Amino acid sequence: MISRIFYVLFIITPLLSFSQQKDSVLMKRLFNEALTHGESYTNLEYLSNKIGGRLAGSPQAAKAVEYCSKLLKTLNPDTVYLQECMVPHWVRGEKERAKIIGSKSAVEVKICALGGSVATPPSGIKAEVVEVKNFNELNALGKAGIEGKIVFFNRAFDPTAISTFEAYGKCVDQRWAGPSMAARLGAVATVCRSMTPDITDYPHTGSMGYNDSFPKIPCCAISTKDAELLSHQLKSDPKLKFWYRQTCKLLPEEKSFNVIAEIRGSVAPNEIITFGGHLDSWETGDGASDDGTGVVQSIEVIRLFRACGIKPKRTIRAVLFMNEENGTRGGKKYATEANEKHETHILALESDRGGFSPRGFSTDMPENKKQKVLSWKSLFLPYGIYDFTETGGGSDIEPLRKLMNVPLMELIPDCQRYFDVHHTPQDTFSRVSKRELELGGAAMASMIYLVSEYGL
Amino acid sequence: MISRIFYVLFIITPLLSFSQQKDSVLMKRLFNEALTHGESYTNLEYLSNKIGGRLAGSPQAAKAVEYCSKLLKTLNPDTVYLQECMVPHWVRGEKERAKIIGSKSAVEVKICALGGSVATPPSGIKAEVVEVKNFNELNALGKAGIEGKIVFFNRAFDPTAISTFEAYGKCVDQRWAGPSMAARLGAVATVCRSMTPDITDYPHTGSMGYNDSFPKIPCCAISTKDAELLSHQLKSDPKLKFWYRQTCKLLPEEKSFNVIAEIRGSVAPNEIITFGGHLDSWETGDGASDDGTGVVQSIEVIRLFRACGIKPKRTIRAVLFMNEENGTRGGKKYATEANEKHETHILALESDRGGFSPRGFSTDMPENKKQKVLSWKSLFLPYGIYDFTETGGGSDIEPLRKLMNVPLMELIPDCQRYFDVHHTPQDTFSRVSKRELELGGAAMASMIYLVSEYGL
Repeated sequence: MISRIFYVLFIITPLLSFSQQKDSVLMKRLFNEALTHGESYTNLEYLSNKIGGRLAGSPQAAKAVEYCSKLLKTLNPDTVYLQECMVPHWVRGEKERAKIIGSKSAVEVKICALGGSVATPPSGIKAEVVEVKNFNELNALGKAGIEGKIVFFNRAFDPTAISTFEAYGKCVDQRWAGPSMAARLGAVATVCRSMTPDITDYPHTGSMGYNDSFPKIPCCAISTKDAELLSHQLKSDPKLKFWYRQTCKLLPEEKSFNVIAEIRGSVAPNEIITFGGHLDSWETGDGASDDGTGVVQSIEVIRLFRACGIKPKRTIRAVLFMNEENGTRGGKKYATEANEKHETHILALESDRGGFSPRGFSTDMPENKKQKVLSWKSLFLPYGIYDFTETGGGSDIEPLRKLMNVPLMELIPDCQRYFDVHHTPQDTFSRVSKRELELGGAAMASMIYLVSEYGL
Repeated sequence: MISRIFYVLFIITPLLSFSQQKDSVLMKRLFNEALTHGESYTNLEYLSNKIGGRLAGSPQAAKAVEYCSKLLKTLNPDTVYLQECMVPHWVRGEKERAKIIGSKSAVEVKICALGGSVATPPSGIKAEVVEVKNFNELNALGKAGIEGKIVFFNRAFDPTAISTFEAYGKCVDQRWAGPSMAARLGAVATVCRSMTPDITDYPHTGSMGYNDSFPKIPCCAISTKDAELLSHQLKSDPKLKFWYRQTCKLLPEEKSFNVIAEIRGSVAPNEIITFGGHLDSWETGDGASDDGTGVVQSIEVIRLFRACGIKPKRTIRAVLFMNEENGTRGGKKYATEANEKHETHILALESDRGGFSPRGFSTDMPENKKQKVLSWKSLFLPYGIYDFTETGGGSDIEPLRKLMNVPLMELIPDCQRYFDVHHTPQDTFSRVSKRELELGGAAMASMIYLVSEYGL
């Protein structure tokens, strides 16, 4: 059977070198295995539907650690272990409520607390609203314009950006830094437009960070539909008030874990390839796409290596990171320990952009290493993976680059649907395509195989 | 604004010639317009949810003709008209039922009649089952093995083919030609495994064709899950019987229409570019992906040309074809009339693979024309459209090639999810992504613009 596949690939890939023809055959086996006996979809169903949303510190996050650890052991890698880390434990509390209170009538709108926000007073917070598009507008208004008010950050996600991640990067500052920027000028709370290109009626949560120099004021996200409504009403009724109530709070830190599994390299076991996704997720949905898919794809890589009988020359290590969403404590702990142990990491590869059809890999590494990756491009083309132009890695592996200058990559799936579901109740298992998920896992396994075989 | 876009693209696309830089700016306008003011998604919602499944000859198909014709008129092209064609009028009748009747117990399974099939007797048809994977196996069994039996065609859709359309092409013969091949050997009915890579519990309908030399026997599709069950039970109980009942029938032919809209070329109005999708659909779902998306994308092309103020040098003509699913009468009529009128068609482009993220265009044309298309490839790359390797056009435009040797293209979207929904109750509006749909429409408009500007 293998020889027949080999023959076929030999015929259709005359431009590949002999070693690339061998690699081409092996990659075909990985993809075939993923598409015929793949377990990632079933595992994702469990993680999403049986465990559900799993914010760091929650019972669900603890269950996810236990489930994935057990699952990895069944795959019989050389070792499976937990790496302890302390994580913030923020809870959303009661369902948030909000109203636009105009001079004539009031209308309920859809909001949710931003992750990390403090609560409003028990009866909620009510104030006039100042709409701004960016920090320049905010600062121009100064204390005189902001004090005592709710700042409404309403810079839209650019729908014309073909890369939705590029558009996300251009508006997420409002969510992350907006509350303290507004508090600095005396604002009493903030409301932030949801980060999505579309006009929909559900809010998108996400993390924010307080600057300790300024008061901690409540902050929430509002659905894009209601952001449009609020903006519209402000034009005719600039003195309207916005009221909202949320009971979220930060509890004491909890002990949690990264889940790690590795297959030791047969030739250079001290050269390590780290790959993974993050175990935690927002609890508004079930965290299937962010980042259940990255988790089950990483587990699948281990399974694929075993099922296809691949003994990697270098050590491959799956890391299921804890707390990417609101602290990156798992990623930081992993890098810190790797650095303390003087480990040699030749690559870190993350999957944290959803389980959509794979289209490429980003790179963040010196030019000579990037050229080596690009030399494999033709091997990926038969799988619709063509784009190696993006830069950067993922949040969980970024500490490895910072501390140890580790080369980074990220799996780049098709990005058009990601911000339909990102950080919302729509992030559910039913939105994931089995085949797309499986192709992504096989693409990761292929890249990891090539690096384990040839180094970087 | 335009000059700013121009400036930006000039900076980022130093490898494009001056005319390509102009084209790049224009394409960016088309994509921006589609992504910010696109109407295709709203139009698809109407077609899917307000009209629904629209098999040729049905009241829904007539409504779709009326709706799309009115819609096109609001866009103010130079002309909108209907092109009459007679279509078959097949109706499914009552909900189909089927059972596997073993020696110990009976179990209900999910089937649906294949489009064009005759009914079973009113009380259903019951017989022993012979499972085959292909016509060779069928023929080897001969009359002795087949007579009086139900033939179960159970060759699986290959999940390892990265192109799902390639896999579809390799198993659809069972559905189309199986019934007559089996009837030739005395079979009383056929059951065909659904055409999908996954194991699911709903059947996929689709057209079949009788050979008039043999008896017309009933034929149905069975869900892949139940196909697996039937195959499994046959191994232990080869004498089990299969029973099914369907009341479908062919009514007298109906008058129907292609809907056509064109913007006349300003320089070479007699050189025509045809593009379209098909109005009819199976009625088991609402026909959103097959081919509501092709229909609304084609309408959107007309809107985009108008909204962006593009006056095409050559004539561009949107054709919403009737009866692709079970007769291709619209496509045949269109080609026949074009031929009779000695029209010059420089290109026909179809969208009939769903409204998923566009990844490329197929071509079916002489090498010199193909090279011209390939010279535009770099213009499409910023939109994730990179694949120009596939060959072929679509069913509706194939008659243009046959009769008049017209060069063909097809929009190639990501193909991984198409056969989850194809010809099933799952083919619904909710499965379509707004952005993916809009990107596909803008990609079509861009290709049509380039051909209208430069010819082929």
